[in-house]
Amino acid sequence: MTNQSSNGLEPFAAVEIIAAKRDRNELTDKQIDWTVDAYTRGVIADEQMSALLMAILLNGMNSREISRWTNAMINSGERMNWSVLDRPTADKHSTGGVGDKITLPLAPLVAACGGAVPQLSGRGLGHTGGTLDKLESIPGWRASLSNEEMLKVLQDTGAVICAAGAGLAPADKKLYALRDVTATVEAIPLIASSIMSKKIAEGTSALILDVKTGSGAFMSDPAKAAELARTMVQLGLDAGVKTRALVTAMDVPLGLTAGNALEVRESIEVLAGGGPADVVVELTILLAREMIDAAGIVGKDPADALKDGSAMDHWKRMISAQGGDPDAKLPVAREQHVITATQSGTMTKMDAMKVGVAAWRLGAGRSKQGEKVQAGAGIEMHAKPGDYVAKGSPLLTLHTDEPARFERAIEILDGAIKIEENGKVDRLPLVIERITG
Amino acid sequence: MTNQSSNGLEPFAAVEIIAAKRDRNELTDKQIDWTVDAYTRGVIADEQMSALLMAILLNGMNSREISRWTNAMINSGERMNWSVLDRPTADKHSTGGVGDKITLPLAPLVAACGGAVPQLSGRGLGHTGGTLDKLESIPGWRASLSNEEMLKVLQDTGAVICAAGAGLAPADKKLYALRDVTATVEAIPLIASSIMSKKIAEGTSALILDVKTGSGAFMSDPAKAAELARTMVQLGLDAGVKTRALVTAMDVPLGLTAGNALEVRESIEVLAGGGPADVVVELTILLAREMIDAAGIVGKDPADALKDGSAMDHWKRMISAQGGDPDAKLPVAREQHVITATQSGTMTKMDAMKVGVAAWRLGAGRSKQGEKVQAGAGIEMHAKPGDYVAKGSPLLTLHTDEPARFERAIEILDGAIKIEENGKVDRLPLVIERITG
Repeated sequence: MTNQSSNGLEPFAAVEIIAAKRDRNELTDKQIDWTVDAYTRGVIADEQMSALLMAILLNGMNSREISRWTNAMINSGERMNWSVLDRPTADKHSTGGVGDKITLPLAPLVAACGGAVPQLSGRGLGHTGGTLDKLESIPGWRASLSNEEMLKVLQDTGAVICAAGAGLAPADKKLYALRDVTATVEAIPLIASSIMSKKIAEGTSALILDVKTGSGAFMSDPAKAAELARTMVQLGLDAGVKTRALVTAMDVPLGLTAGNALEVRESIEVLAGGGPADVVVELTILLAREMIDAAGIVGKDPADALKDGSAMDHWKRMISAQGGDPDAKLPVAREQHVITATQSGTMTKMDAMKVGVAAWRLGAGRSKQGEKVQAGAGIEMHAKPGDYVAKGSPLLTLHTDEPARFERAIEILDGAIKIEENGKVDRLPLVIERITG
Repeated sequence: MTNQSSNGLEPFAAVEIIAAKRDRNELTDKQIDWTVDAYTRGVIADEQMSALLMAILLNGMNSREISRWTNAMINSGERMNWSVLDRPTADKHSTGGVGDKITLPLAPLVAACGGAVPQLSGRGLGHTGGTLDKLESIPGWRASLSNEEMLKVLQDTGAVICAAGAGLAPADKKLYALRDVTATVEAIPLIASSIMSKKIAEGTSALILDVKTGSGAFMSDPAKAAELARTMVQLGLDAGVKTRALVTAMDVPLGLTAGNALEVRESIEVLAGGGPADVVVELTILLAREMIDAAGIVGKDPADALKDGSAMDHWKRMISAQGGDPDAKLPVAREQHVITATQSGTMTKMDAMKVGVAAWRLGAGRSKQGEKVQAGAGIEMHAKPGDYVAKGSPLLTLHTDEPARFERAIEILDGAIKIEENGKVDRLPLVIERITG
């Protein structure tokens, strides 16, 4: 029995909070507020927080605890306010998947429909770069804006995608880095509070969550994904944000590219009113409709904004406003390698995770925070499940600046694609569940 | 998905080991060996180990994993060897309880019966000092011996009680300090491996475990205590140590004193062939019989060694060999406060934990490693459950050097003792279970 009570200066001791969650007790509001604050102040040490995070991962938190934890993270920093804008704000967050570039065409599309999209985004860790990494492949574009610059871009163009500053949910930044090295990422209370604390602090008044599920998603089990979605929708509603979620398929890569500049190119194709023969356009329009509806905008159809060029116009203004040249040639990787079909038949499977890891190994993603990503690296897909392919026709083109990377990318792609003469394609529907709280 | 595989220099990454235990997988022998070694080397960070410890606490380890983990901790340091001695070694470990001073009379008693007791002991953390703290109340006595000095004392006197050096199971030292601040002390695999790695590395050939249970014990549930005992006995047997365990009662304090010098005084009474009207003498003899039997010594009765003065003789030699004066006056606390009975009747309850915390608050125990303890502080008990007490007769004498400490000690003692006119005493039997593997 050690002295695990408070020292008189702090109302609690870290070890008693950890022990409470370890023993499956609910944490009180006061305990949660103190825990998040004390960790931010460095009073709770990393080794204590990681033990608590593991206890939370294994023993869970109820909805009151998650809500309070989220609020405590918001309160650790500033909360942005866009009430000076003359139009309603709406944002979208995706839990991420292979080839998920939807934010890129979506933000200017919603702006073209009369919404304001104040998206604070991140750099990726893992198989592909994050939204900022993708946009940084555009010559001149910069991710870091002051709050004043952010407001100006939003006022001028209706959409801004930039890096979250250090003042936004600093508790989450510290926690996220810790979770990454302690195998405590995969806990619904921690995922939900991390995402929602940032999105609520960002100050959007409407929020659409795209929760991915399937083999290529973080939450491969649809039931788990739906649970995460419901948890986040409730957190948003509790905070006064009009929040909805779509649970969508991530069993095969989204679209025909995975990589940074490659995904920008595909996004521009969508904005040009074309877009790949895949679900990218469909999902972009679907999410845009949810966003403008939640924001209370009526009488606008995003499909029209893609056709009439107004979405593309907003894209160009948004990119220019952050120093980017929307007409510049995008970087291209120095080396390409084409993988062809070894037999004729119908493609019945394309493993999203394997394609993602291959893109990562080609240089599109990073393994550690701070690592550089290659702008041109990634994978082009020439066919998708359901397509007929002839023997010898191209399936994938791998792109990298460093040819030494091909070998390990090809290695992980072994078995990623299945072609069968009379095979049945088994794909998840695009939208698996819609959650409105 | 982050890069959680190895970096090429290490065979594993910490995060994959944590994730495996988080997901209720068994750790392989290689994973366990690497984990303990990498933590000792500082390759696994404290915040990673604490997450793993919490996962182990909540998800458990099977007997193979515990055995391997224990071995890895032993292999992190030196393993002592007493084969040069002309008599068999035997040691005892108690999981600790209020007033448990048994080691003090037991070691010289077993020496008097022909055994050699090489006890490496610790300082206490919590309600009372450890064995070393108790012995340090004897003027001149010193706990730190080199391995050579330890062997010499053992050869000359048959018993040595000293501090474990830094070379013994260093992994356990680091882990123990981490567990203490991360609420991961209370896990059977971690308790068992911590105790047994030190005892096996200590090199004893026979070992008797005194696993305490009841309200004043670390393991208050007898079933849990028996599980811990069985786990430790198996670990000992696996390592070739003749190991047995007794699960014994710790619902009321052991003996009539709790404190450092106070317990030394009581131990000397036992060695003088007297001893308090309590189970201290009974338990000392019982454990001594187990030790000499396990060590293969026949034809000796510890009860005789108490009566004929040979145990006392060995005590004096043991204390003298480590610089102590066995005939010196023991320190006495500067202040005393007597608590008397507010009614007449039979004492039906004395809460061990409350008495322990009171002794701690009087200055007998420490809250942090490195803190000083008061030699004279503690509690004398003038009656025990089952005794008849008259109104106004003394129940407890509190001892401390600092009278300001009385108030908080008295506060915790509220309700610790129950006196009823026709009350039934509900005490655990002394030995609840004997486990021989």
